[in-house]
Amino acid sequence: MNIEILSIAKKERSIYDPLCKELSKMISRFAKIEDIELFNKDVTKAHTISPEASREAYSKLFAPHVVKSFNVILHPDGKLIDSYEFSKLLDGKIAVKFFIGGAYGFEDEFLKKGDSIISLGNITMSHKIAKVVLLEQIYRGFSILSNHPYHK
Amino acid sequence: MNIEILSIAKKERSIYDPLCKELSKMISRFAKIEDIELFNKDVTKAHTISPEASREAYSKLFAPHVVKSFNVILHPDGKLIDSYEFSKLLDGKIAVKFFIGGAYGFEDEFLKKGDSIISLGNITMSHKIAKVVLLEQIYRGFSILSNHPYHK
Repeated sequence: MNIEILSIAKKERSIYDPLCKELSKMISRFAKIEDIELFNKDVTKAHTISPEASREAYSKLFAPHVVKSFNVILHPDGKLIDSYEFSKLLDGKIAVKFFIGGAYGFEDEFLKKGDSIISLGNITMSHKIAKVVLLEQIYRGFSILSNHPYHK
Repeated sequence: MNIEILSIAKKERSIYDPLCKELSKMISRFAKIEDIELFNKDVTKAHTISPEASREAYSKLFAPHVVKSFNVILHPDGKLIDSYEFSKLLDGKIAVKFFIGGAYGFEDEFLKKGDSIISLGNITMSHKIAKVVLLEQIYRGFSILSNHPYHK
């Protein structure tokens, strides 16, 4: 099984890296996982123009990735799920992609391409914290599916 | 203003430390923050006996701390709040304490001592992830209260 986490973020070293790496390593027992951060000059420019232009730029970056996979979009208005419901997103899939939006979220048009739109909670989290929480849910999800004692 | 985060955890170095330290440093612009991890032999023993015995042992460790402060308990059945509601927990307080339960949660008797019982989401998070999420909410909360651009 292949999992990809796609987010709008500059590739740069951060204090979150060791933790993301550790959680990814834990997940690798169950699936191949890739953390893909997307950013380009169009996004930088769009951020100076408007939220709408920014969301359009994100969609263009995400577009090549919205194929041949079960696509899960993390969105504040998505379905508020618990860890058991989350685990079902992974169950029996060949490829799952998780999309974390940029500073201005997602285009409405992009949301239509999601197979599932979920929310991890009502609180607003930074994109980096959201990724950490998502990684732990993925590990927890596999633990639930395989009756591993991590989730009791 | 003084903030304390109290959790049932062994004091040991972890991969989460640099991140917690960084978030605490960000918060220190707004308030004094202390991360207090509690654990003793009674908890170790209680964990081998039963969930009930464990929760009783947690209550005993927490007891001396449930004084002279606004006490917020993080609990799966607590009120599901958003970041604005969270910020109000900090507003105008002199001392706020956040309690994160042990592996078996909290005693019902202990829950009665909370001034507010909140949930950060329906998903189950490890205690360490919960602490990271909580720290960022505290920083975000102060940013909201002071119109700082971190939360937009």
